[in-house]
Amino acid sequence: MNVSIYGVGSSLFGKQPAASPEQLAWTAVLEALDDAAADDIDAAFVGTVFGAPGVAQRVLQGVGLAGIPVLTIANACASGTSAFHEAVTAVASGRFRRPLVLGIESISVSFAGAIHPEPTDSEGRTGLALPGLYAMAASRYLGLGLVTREQLALVSVKNHANALANDRAQYSGDYTVEQVLESRMIADPLTLLQCCPVSDGAAAAVLGPERRRERDVKVRASVHRAGGLWDHRSEHVWGYELVRDTARDAYEAASVGPEDIDVFEVHDAFTIGEIVTTEALGMAEVGGGGKLVESGHTALYGPQPVNPSGGLLSRGHPLGATGVAQIKEIVDQLRGEAGDRQLASADLGLVETMGGGVAGIDGNACVVTVLER
Amino acid sequence: MNVSIYGVGSSLFGKQPAASPEQLAWTAVLEALDDAAADDIDAAFVGTVFGAPGVAQRVLQGVGLAGIPVLTIANACASGTSAFHEAVTAVASGRFRRPLVLGIESISVSFAGAIHPEPTDSEGRTGLALPGLYAMAASRYLGLGLVTREQLALVSVKNHANALANDRAQYSGDYTVEQVLESRMIADPLTLLQCCPVSDGAAAAVLGPERRRERDVKVRASVHRAGGLWDHRSEHVWGYELVRDTARDAYEAASVGPEDIDVFEVHDAFTIGEIVTTEALGMAEVGGGGKLVESGHTALYGPQPVNPSGGLLSRGHPLGATGVAQIKEIVDQLRGEAGDRQLASADLGLVETMGGGVAGIDGNACVVTVLER
Repeated sequence: MNVSIYGVGSSLFGKQPAASPEQLAWTAVLEALDDAAADDIDAAFVGTVFGAPGVAQRVLQGVGLAGIPVLTIANACASGTSAFHEAVTAVASGRFRRPLVLGIESISVSFAGAIHPEPTDSEGRTGLALPGLYAMAASRYLGLGLVTREQLALVSVKNHANALANDRAQYSGDYTVEQVLESRMIADPLTLLQCCPVSDGAAAAVLGPERRRERDVKVRASVHRAGGLWDHRSEHVWGYELVRDTARDAYEAASVGPEDIDVFEVHDAFTIGEIVTTEALGMAEVGGGGKLVESGHTALYGPQPVNPSGGLLSRGHPLGATGVAQIKEIVDQLRGEAGDRQLASADLGLVETMGGGVAGIDGNACVVTVLER
Repeated sequence: MNVSIYGVGSSLFGKQPAASPEQLAWTAVLEALDDAAADDIDAAFVGTVFGAPGVAQRVLQGVGLAGIPVLTIANACASGTSAFHEAVTAVASGRFRRPLVLGIESISVSFAGAIHPEPTDSEGRTGLALPGLYAMAASRYLGLGLVTREQLALVSVKNHANALANDRAQYSGDYTVEQVLESRMIADPLTLLQCCPVSDGAAAAVLGPERRRERDVKVRASVHRAGGLWDHRSEHVWGYELVRDTARDAYEAASVGPEDIDVFEVHDAFTIGEIVTTEALGMAEVGGGGKLVESGHTALYGPQPVNPSGGLLSRGHPLGATGVAQIKEIVDQLRGEAGDRQLASADLGLVETMGGGVAGIDGNACVVTVLER
């Protein structure tokens, strides 16, 4: 589709209440600009959920990029990849030649007390917030015998271990299945170590048409779809169909199948999320996701690593920044620049981000992108 | 550019704390869908500044439009026309064939106490909020003899009188210049009746490629530009250059000049705003905007009416909804369906929206659109 990623950057991820969102973003943007070897940025697509009005403009002002068109896009947890998708679309159509993509979120301060459910937020009012909803999916999977508690815990073990080699990750650790299962219960059956943390962070990328440069990474396909109500008639848990359909479109657009992908970054907001997503992505049959992680197939040095960065569970989940950080991880892996977690060989990578209430009460969004070295 | 507006709709504008944002939006969306005679909406572009996460998805869910791609776009006071511009671009490039544009804002409740300046918001911290910044521009104009207090007040007199014929406007009235000048001082020289109110409201439009239908209104040009720092070396007050440059691009794209436009909706957040904007739009020389309103040139039945709806000053200013409401007013006028405020003849109309801190500390955005019957 004649779109490449020229450069990527990110801040540290973690609880950083003393850092302003602008400071986090400047770190990410300056790294991406330097990496891109391109200084003629002509637009900015900024993904954020709780970013204050004008935050994107302040960031750009601070790095000498005032005056370019700026679009700030909110799409729940998929805000970052939604902004990325808009930038890809803009380059593909010739609308812009060098857009900056920025994902930014600074929520540790506000989540410490200031944010309350909106009166119209049905998830907030019912208490069916994300941990509870993911827990319902996990319970159903457990009840149907489609996964075991130990397999769920293994996702956390794997991703925390992967993050040991990621010095920008919020958390990491060499945990056992027992330690994961014995950590504090958040929403049965999901324990603390099976839930993504509250995070502050920023990530950035610079895009443009394909050019002769070894380090650029090609966008082979990018698909954005939205889902609706949680269909209680469905045989599947929430989100499964949306991820499956979005991935199917992306594979088709890229002329590949799941077996061709060397490395995945997927939306493991909770351990059950990675299990269901690997199934929806076609890496396993329904009910096969647990065995997939158990077998080591998705381990860092397995045949098809999933979340080598540590994923949302360990790298952290600053909402709007997450998708762009996923992009950065795949770019780093395809370039062979992922440091101590570098895979031996990776030519094709896939990013999947899921946004919106998992019950679909508010509708969901999903972005799947296939990248190629 | 082969893009038409098929239908428009809006809620009432005003302080409506008992109405949810979704309720306001449903009214606007259902009216626009009905008006458009098209039921195959394939995407939604939603402009809002303070809309809660998921509000766009809840609106679409409620009208049976779940599952289409949704982009929620924040761009300060230009959020609505930024969303409109993205939809226009999407239709022009063939990306979508029937996008819904929605502007939505519900702020009367939160502005009553809950919103405080963000720690990184330089405007909030310095107290240089919008009334103060517009007042500085007005003071400079007064000091340089480019406008009189009476001419400023005349903008308010005109727009409040125009709104008498707009039953969806928040405020209207048959005021005198003296009454405007004697209303409570907000930021010297701007009195209460010279400042736009806090408003809740929603407005919607349905777009698509041109087709054979009398009531459709053509988009002849749409331009989105961004500005940077308030350049203290400039001879002009804030925003002048940005509006001038955006309008110049729009006139060029539409192959028209300001003299060809029959009716204008412009960003009169404060009276000085309309004065400076009419100058930046080329309707008068710098310093001629006051005389323009004084002469009756921009009156409802003058040669080139400005803000026949009542403008932001009287119709109200629910941030994200404003730009789409401006579009609706011009569509209504071009169709001859503006009721008691219908102009005798209008073939070409122009919408201008300005967003962002007026001092440009945070960067500004401007959208100018030329519409044709």
